[in-house]
Amino acid sequence: MSATFKIRLKALDQLLHEARLNALLITHPANWYYLTGFTGESGALIASKGSATLISDGRFTTQAREETSSVRYVEQKGSLMESIGRLLREKSLRRVGFDPSQISVAQLRSLRKAARVHTEWISAPGLVEALRIRKEPAELARMRRAAKLAGDVLTGALKLLKPGVTENEIAAEIEYQMRRGGASGPAFETIVAFGERAALPHARPTAKRLRKNELVVLDLGVILAHYCSDITRTVYVGRAPARVKQWHKAVQEAQTAAIAAVGAGVSCGDVDAAARQILVGYKLDRYFTHSTGHGLGLEVHEAPRVARGQTARLESGFVVTIEPGVYMAGVGGIRIEDDVAVHTDKTEILTRIPRDLIEL
Amino acid sequence: MSATFKIRLKALDQLLHEARLNALLITHPANWYYLTGFTGESGALIASKGSATLISDGRFTTQAREETSSVRYVEQKGSLMESIGRLLREKSLRRVGFDPSQISVAQLRSLRKAARVHTEWISAPGLVEALRIRKEPAELARMRRAAKLAGDVLTGALKLLKPGVTENEIAAEIEYQMRRGGASGPAFETIVAFGERAALPHARPTAKRLRKNELVVLDLGVILAHYCSDITRTVYVGRAPARVKQWHKAVQEAQTAAIAAVGAGVSCGDVDAAARQILVGYKLDRYFTHSTGHGLGLEVHEAPRVARGQTARLESGFVVTIEPGVYMAGVGGIRIEDDVAVHTDKTEILTRIPRDLIEL
Repeated sequence: MSATFKIRLKALDQLLHEARLNALLITHPANWYYLTGFTGESGALIASKGSATLISDGRFTTQAREETSSVRYVEQKGSLMESIGRLLREKSLRRVGFDPSQISVAQLRSLRKAARVHTEWISAPGLVEALRIRKEPAELARMRRAAKLAGDVLTGALKLLKPGVTENEIAAEIEYQMRRGGASGPAFETIVAFGERAALPHARPTAKRLRKNELVVLDLGVILAHYCSDITRTVYVGRAPARVKQWHKAVQEAQTAAIAAVGAGVSCGDVDAAARQILVGYKLDRYFTHSTGHGLGLEVHEAPRVARGQTARLESGFVVTIEPGVYMAGVGGIRIEDDVAVHTDKTEILTRIPRDLIEL
Repeated sequence: MSATFKIRLKALDQLLHEARLNALLITHPANWYYLTGFTGESGALIASKGSATLISDGRFTTQAREETSSVRYVEQKGSLMESIGRLLREKSLRRVGFDPSQISVAQLRSLRKAARVHTEWISAPGLVEALRIRKEPAELARMRRAAKLAGDVLTGALKLLKPGVTENEIAAEIEYQMRRGGASGPAFETIVAFGERAALPHARPTAKRLRKNELVVLDLGVILAHYCSDITRTVYVGRAPARVKQWHKAVQEAQTAAIAAVGAGVSCGDVDAAARQILVGYKLDRYFTHSTGHGLGLEVHEAPRVARGQTARLESGFVVTIEPGVYMAGVGGIRIEDDVAVHTDKTEILTRIPRDLIEL
């Protein structure tokens, strides 16, 4: 892995050069993991031309030394912001970039104080994310495994959906099987929503018991070897009435259309529009209350956004979710979600379990 | 619960009045849950004298209407920051407070733009946290249940510690039992650290297998009815050698001394010093590389910090962890952690399982 980190740091060097920065302050854990392999939750990485320094506190010192080899390590003295300021002064780093969405107002204030007049703070959003958005073959291999595990866990959970079981019980089983499958945990709070609760796109599991003739939405993902997956399927417990079948058919067609629209060079807004257009045909578009998808990788929500009006274009190596849904307050909801990777000449669906309405 | 939220909003009104603010922008989910009961992950709460408005996006609209009753709800149009700015202009709210540690530099920039010249943004850190730090009887009742469940889960996990089992397997079982016990999930990434890995205060579970004559650190907590617990016990698999017994004795005495020091009116720094002083006597203080504890409640780390030099004083209703430890790189570590509530006339230990070294 050490060679990988060196290559990534070198690619970042190039971005710093283009932005005429002497250094970039990296405060987001997914970003420092991507560049160094450090999995600690507290610290900062300062990347400058040809060298990078990781700062963390005593709790993480041994771990940082074990996990990293291509960066220098400095143990924090005083506050983190003071340690960063001291390092910038010692290394005479003047034009320092930071991501304004990853630094709080209070942190920037402390940084300005710690670095003194010496440093000019330059807003430089999304530089590491610009590298992360294009997955390398080894990253895609991990994402395939994460997607496979999520599909297996979801398939297993279907067998447990019997009247009387609670949302909490299903969520417990799902997360247990994730761990048994090698995941470090769920990629986000597992959604198990029965009946009316399926109308809430972000329902949290409750003590509600499953009854016959209810919709069930299962939305889950794992973190496996640091990479995330995200999959949703909708189930009807019993024989689905005609309107439920119709809703599911519409969402499935919308999803199929959006997946078909995915490709290198296509704008994210056009992928979103492909899903929405189908739902317009079914007069269901006003029940689709969120965007079509999001990028996926070290984080479960990352660039790009697959949403209305997004002009950013997909490229080879991007991985996005495609997850249209319709939500009927008081009745239930339908959502189907898969993870797809963009290649130069094809689209690869990473989550490979069937997408039809499941009637149990 | 609705009466509770009204009382809390009223208490916040008083703080706004004292800080001469027309409104406070609340962007931290634990804070809006505390004031309204809304459990959605995206949105903002604007509290102004006698009224509060919750803003969220379409994914959370039904949920927000179900969960809240004492606040007005507005569905987001455009970006969240635009919606906040529009509301502030409509309501002519001029002096608006925000917590600089809970707003990113990018968000404040967007807010300034959205609210136009109309609004003066005032740094007002920790106002809701100042209310949250003092737990009400109903909150303490939930925290007792969360602490009890964590203790039960830890006790159950001890039975599984047999040579050959992996850290990941134990973590899976622990989190499964949390869910079975009614928790919505772990309060933080469960720590299961065998042997040398126990020397890492924040070790993540791995595929490492347990061997005879190893130390095991188990550090876990649940979220139950929204409130967190946090407990640590150290186990030796086999008959502990003299030096391990000595380390454990030192840590246990340090923890006992710190718990004895806890009380209304005592400074957090003095509690930390009580633990550290004992370790000095054992010449182990330099292996205690973190602070003695932290506040606990809706979040697993909240005010106050129980650390060196902290002058803030404990008061009745505060809940803190007391968790000294020693870490020997290459050998292992010892940590003992309990959750304690401060009352006017006594200290209540919420986590009630034995604290002696466990030899299996």
